[in-house]
Amino acid sequence: MSTGTRIQRITITPIAFRDPPLLNSAGVHEPWALRSIIEVVTEDGVLGLGESYGDTGHLARMESVLPGLIGLDVYALNQIHAKVAEALGGVAGSDKHGLTGDFTSGGTVDRVFSPFEVACLDIQGHLLGRPVHDLLGGKVRDSVPYSAYLFYKWAGHPGAEADEWGEAIDPAGMVEQTRKMVREYGFGSIKLKGGVFPPEQEIAAIQALREAFPNHPLRIDPNCAWSVPTSLRVAKELDGVLEYLEDPTPGINGMSEVAKQASMPLATNMCVVSYDQLPEAIAKDAVQVILSDHHYWGGLTRSRHLGVICDTFGVGLSMHSNSHLGISLAAMTHLAAATPNLSYACDTHYPWNAQDEVIEPGVVSFVDGAMAVPTTPGLGVTLDRDQLARLHENYRTCGLKVRDDTGYMQKFQPDYERKRPRW
Amino acid sequence: MSTGTRIQRITITPIAFRDPPLLNSAGVHEPWALRSIIEVVTEDGVLGLGESYGDTGHLARMESVLPGLIGLDVYALNQIHAKVAEALGGVAGSDKHGLTGDFTSGGTVDRVFSPFEVACLDIQGHLLGRPVHDLLGGKVRDSVPYSAYLFYKWAGHPGAEADEWGEAIDPAGMVEQTRKMVREYGFGSIKLKGGVFPPEQEIAAIQALREAFPNHPLRIDPNCAWSVPTSLRVAKELDGVLEYLEDPTPGINGMSEVAKQASMPLATNMCVVSYDQLPEAIAKDAVQVILSDHHYWGGLTRSRHLGVICDTFGVGLSMHSNSHLGISLAAMTHLAAATPNLSYACDTHYPWNAQDEVIEPGVVSFVDGAMAVPTTPGLGVTLDRDQLARLHENYRTCGLKVRDDTGYMQKFQPDYERKRPRW
Repeated sequence: MSTGTRIQRITITPIAFRDPPLLNSAGVHEPWALRSIIEVVTEDGVLGLGESYGDTGHLARMESVLPGLIGLDVYALNQIHAKVAEALGGVAGSDKHGLTGDFTSGGTVDRVFSPFEVACLDIQGHLLGRPVHDLLGGKVRDSVPYSAYLFYKWAGHPGAEADEWGEAIDPAGMVEQTRKMVREYGFGSIKLKGGVFPPEQEIAAIQALREAFPNHPLRIDPNCAWSVPTSLRVAKELDGVLEYLEDPTPGINGMSEVAKQASMPLATNMCVVSYDQLPEAIAKDAVQVILSDHHYWGGLTRSRHLGVICDTFGVGLSMHSNSHLGISLAAMTHLAAATPNLSYACDTHYPWNAQDEVIEPGVVSFVDGAMAVPTTPGLGVTLDRDQLARLHENYRTCGLKVRDDTGYMQKFQPDYERKRPRW
Repeated sequence: MSTGTRIQRITITPIAFRDPPLLNSAGVHEPWALRSIIEVVTEDGVLGLGESYGDTGHLARMESVLPGLIGLDVYALNQIHAKVAEALGGVAGSDKHGLTGDFTSGGTVDRVFSPFEVACLDIQGHLLGRPVHDLLGGKVRDSVPYSAYLFYKWAGHPGAEADEWGEAIDPAGMVEQTRKMVREYGFGSIKLKGGVFPPEQEIAAIQALREAFPNHPLRIDPNCAWSVPTSLRVAKELDGVLEYLEDPTPGINGMSEVAKQASMPLATNMCVVSYDQLPEAIAKDAVQVILSDHHYWGGLTRSRHLGVICDTFGVGLSMHSNSHLGISLAAMTHLAAATPNLSYACDTHYPWNAQDEVIEPGVVSFVDGAMAVPTTPGLGVTLDRDQLARLHENYRTCGLKVRDDTGYMQKFQPDYERKRPRW
């Protein structure tokens, strides 16, 4: 057994890439999305890649665990998880935008652990000469369907030119945005990020989408913008129209109340985002679909555990995404490929961010709304160091250190207030 | 990526090995324990080993899935599981002894799948040059503690000479058996298989063990021999004495009633033996410790999922054993080594059966009641083909095809009746 599989060096590079003015219940996306690229290198010089969040708190937490990881074997994932937990010492992180729920201390460990686990699996795959999904039980599908992820948006960032997507602030604009995205990517499912306009307007948008795309499964995600009564009203008006209703209202208790009367399944990536929230949510039947996300469920192996938990307790499984680049997309695709009970098209922000990339071109691309499962060793992606340097320079100069959708919105609408529920 | 990792051949060899007259709530162990050795061979000629049950029903179910498995890749574990499920077509198996609970159709799939999964991981480990625990997230301990598994027993099988363990039918005999087993193996925990004599006699045995071994954690497992009121009476009398009380009474509802009032955790390998039984058991807080067993929880990877489920829902995790040999012992040890929340010493029947073995000698041995975690590739065991042939010949000639503790007991006590609860 080679000892050359021990971790010799880990590099965390914060990056920033361009992001359009996408609207949500917390405000609007800033011109730059923050992210980090994680490189793990073994004593034998094998490189593994991970991608994670880029806000300062998370960067500091990742940096703080590094000393404990050097010298550990890339196969010692249980030990790496324990070392991360030990180094964090029970701290519970937080974010400013609050779009992925409350952080528990266990959830914080899983968030920090995740990119190192993905990088270690990438290395394991390279050493073995097999794709990462083979380390997760093997693929059960050759391509992974993703959904068109629609956003209300401004034409461009204030003071800048309109972007290629243009404005979408009403049903007609949303249908137009969808036509473009479906035409370019071939997506067969549609998700609308709501919580931006009064519910009636968003119901009208969903109805316009239903008319324009009669056979596409539809979802709406208002990020907890609605009270329980408002959620129930929307659920009633969209009866028979939605595949699932995502995070209509805050908290396990609120979701549970809505679930009792809503005709469609409720999905979440806000009230159940770590293992310690599962028992209460399951006991209260608060959610019928969990949007998994390996970035905060503790990496790919632990996300497979989550998949089996969902299967065992009769909870559906879909996949969540934040703004991300190709390393994450590859990891998501390997995971989805090896998760038999993932029965919904996965979310991805990729079309909004694909113009900036840190991996060599041509590796990730959508065909008929799906991504082919990589068959080359590891994650199947190669870091483009010129692009990494460019995106790191963006990070250095863009002036952002924390994602703050609300603060950015307030620059243009000083009386804007973040409020959940808002309606 | 080599295609030589596809399964070319699978051989299932039923075996029989000597078993002492161990008593339980279903009767008494017959002179031969039935088992099967599974050999999976890849197109490149790499051999992987598994060990499973040996009764005719299970052998037939394993044989029935083989055609679907030939040609599948040893990394395609999800696909292999699906093929097993497909071939079994929703059948629910059964056993005659009823000591490991009711079979559901899902549980039957996991029982049949398990030895093939273990053999595929053995092959994966050999190909990688690393021990199987490295395929399960890596070991978190260098040795795995096992418990002394005590049985009421006759001196020898009727008509045969007394075996080396002699008779144990009262507290004094049980203390003597324990002294021998602890002396020879160094076990630091003690489990008494009860359900044989009226509860008062077994309480007296536990009290005698407590006196003789003041620092050893103690468990008793009557295999559902007691009613709810009897279970509560025993629980009260053994308050403060037991580490856990295993399967005092039948069914999730019965266990739940006992759990409400018993001071010690209740453990099970009878009312929760497959994933589909977990939701009800957890909702009713029926069991506080699950005895995992990769032979029926779907192999090593799926047992890791079970471990995370237990961790998530605050259920303790221990490990169950049937009569087994060294391939199973190695697999159990790899799994236990890579399961962080396994906090109890594992059960093993090994001391009762160690005189017959199918692996080369010297590989598995207990030091201070624990087994060192193998560090060589795969499971770390090598098949002894001479011994395999000998044990298969035992199977051919012993006349047993199904385990039947009750029928064997009735040969000597014609009025013996299997009854749960009996008291």
